[in-house]
Amino acid sequence: MTNLPREFALIENYFRPLAGPAGLALADDAAILPEIPGREWVVSVDAMVAGVHFLADDPPDLIARKLLRVNLSDLAAMAAQPFGYLLTLAAPGTTPDAWFAGFAAGLAEDQTRFDLTLLGGDTTATPGPLVLSLTIFGAVATGKALRRTGAQPGDEVWVSGTIGDAALGLLVRRGELADPSGTLLRRYLLPEPRLFLPLAGIARAGADISDGLVQDLGHLCRAGGIGAVIEAASVPLSPAARAAGPDHLARCLTGGDDYELVLAVPPERAAALQAAAAAAGVEVTRIGHFRADPARVLVRDAAGGEMALGSGGWSHF
Amino acid sequence: MTNLPREFALIENYFRPLAGPAGLALADDAAILPEIPGREWVVSVDAMVAGVHFLADDPPDLIARKLLRVNLSDLAAMAAQPFGYLLTLAAPGTTPDAWFAGFAAGLAEDQTRFDLTLLGGDTTATPGPLVLSLTIFGAVATGKALRRTGAQPGDEVWVSGTIGDAALGLLVRRGELADPSGTLLRRYLLPEPRLFLPLAGIARAGADISDGLVQDLGHLCRAGGIGAVIEAASVPLSPAARAAGPDHLARCLTGGDDYELVLAVPPERAAALQAAAAAAGVEVTRIGHFRADPARVLVRDAAGGEMALGSGGWSHF
Repeated sequence: MTNLPREFALIENYFRPLAGPAGLALADDAAILPEIPGREWVVSVDAMVAGVHFLADDPPDLIARKLLRVNLSDLAAMAAQPFGYLLTLAAPGTTPDAWFAGFAAGLAEDQTRFDLTLLGGDTTATPGPLVLSLTIFGAVATGKALRRTGAQPGDEVWVSGTIGDAALGLLVRRGELADPSGTLLRRYLLPEPRLFLPLAGIARAGADISDGLVQDLGHLCRAGGIGAVIEAASVPLSPAARAAGPDHLARCLTGGDDYELVLAVPPERAAALQAAAAAAGVEVTRIGHFRADPARVLVRDAAGGEMALGSGGWSHF
Repeated sequence: MTNLPREFALIENYFRPLAGPAGLALADDAAILPEIPGREWVVSVDAMVAGVHFLADDPPDLIARKLLRVNLSDLAAMAAQPFGYLLTLAAPGTTPDAWFAGFAAGLAEDQTRFDLTLLGGDTTATPGPLVLSLTIFGAVATGKALRRTGAQPGDEVWVSGTIGDAALGLLVRRGELADPSGTLLRRYLLPEPRLFLPLAGIARAGADISDGLVQDLGHLCRAGGIGAVIEAASVPLSPAARAAGPDHLARCLTGGDDYELVLAVPPERAAALQAAAAAAGVEVTRIGHFRADPARVLVRDAAGGEMALGSGGWSHF
């Protein structure tokens, strides 16, 4: 009992301070989610691998915050509010304590910003690269979760924020693109989950843009058995993305990691969306509309023709 | 839209058939847990790494079932009943489809056995070994979850099943121990979560034995600020473990992966425990008692002296 192994020291020093009441001080085999009358739990999980989703020598606080935020974005896509999270780390045995300290500091910062706490987790050694998995828990009024299903022909396609910055930020990270303002790299390293955009009663369907605008819009189309057409010239680009030049437009439309929202909004609710977004300080832009068929996503270029997009999306496989 | 990446094909072919209603057909960004009046959700997560927790060439169905069962054991330790799970796989890009088919078949088999369904997940490639993480969801009557805290001096220490088989099974796996009956290896590869042992109103505290009997009993002691003394000769061993000889006793008491339960039971409830266990077809054995101090776990040998245990437990770090 005197020589507790390193796993317990890591939990004690870095993770227990992050636990909320539902985490039972991380002293139990599991956490307990309280009953919240009139609300139901929304749960999701995302994994991140060093060398695939981030670089092993990225700052640990930014790795932690991105891991939390990509999961928070899944809650935003369902119109749920954050409550807490479970975390697993498979880390090389040589990972120094300072790395865990930085990682925990990043979690602490975003816990405060997004109002959630650690519920529990599992820490283990691996002979391979760092692999992180985070399960997020949010709550939504019963029956009011935004779904991918529900878009109807005639609904407008709206997106939050600007599209493609993260995909260009990955090029910056690889030294293949200049980024004088630092915007593109920052957007890649630290996405902004759109949790503060109230969508209940406004959007009919929605998803977050993790795999790329065209692919995630495609998810809404498949779920509804319909199609969509968007105008490339209407897709909102940041000044930094515009400065990268038109050769990068296809990458902006298909690249992943933006964590903006793509929404199906009936035309008569467009004004309500704009008002809600303005109140939340989030820009929203109409980029096209859903239609009955063909059941695919068509991207029109400035001349009205179909834009060639290459592979059309992004896969981690 | 025509060339969906491999990740989607894997989900479509192997994982979507495992999804239950709450998983929303795996078509959404997150799953929704239904409200169950009078019950609260118990959630836990465990990760497993190839080369650490299993061998990369273990049968994929057994890897899947062990992953599910170690998590189900956390529900058993809280006296909760299974509902569903989220899954992340970080798998080498060379992993063949047949591996995923076998893995999904193992999940399907134990989903039926333990009455739960897949809620969602994330599949990604990794340049390293296979890393699995599973988040389990169970339900328990509100306020009735069994906790690690609550053991009191005078409570008896009880365990389910037999202790140490899995630790010896790991030796068998390594070719360091004979196992003519196959019991030890089977117990290592496929633990039996004690979900069918009704503990409400009987046990005052409990944990599952994942890190080793002495260490997990130590968790109950630390949580209660008390100590415990157990008699090595009372600890139930399987015939296969007895056949391994007395030199392996310390390993049985400190080795991990048994996934039996260790419980604090007031003496006046011992008969109720035995009756409940008999009805569930599970053996339970009294191995010692809790005491106020010293706040540590003492293991007495057959002569009444303190047994030397070496490192006293197991860590994956």
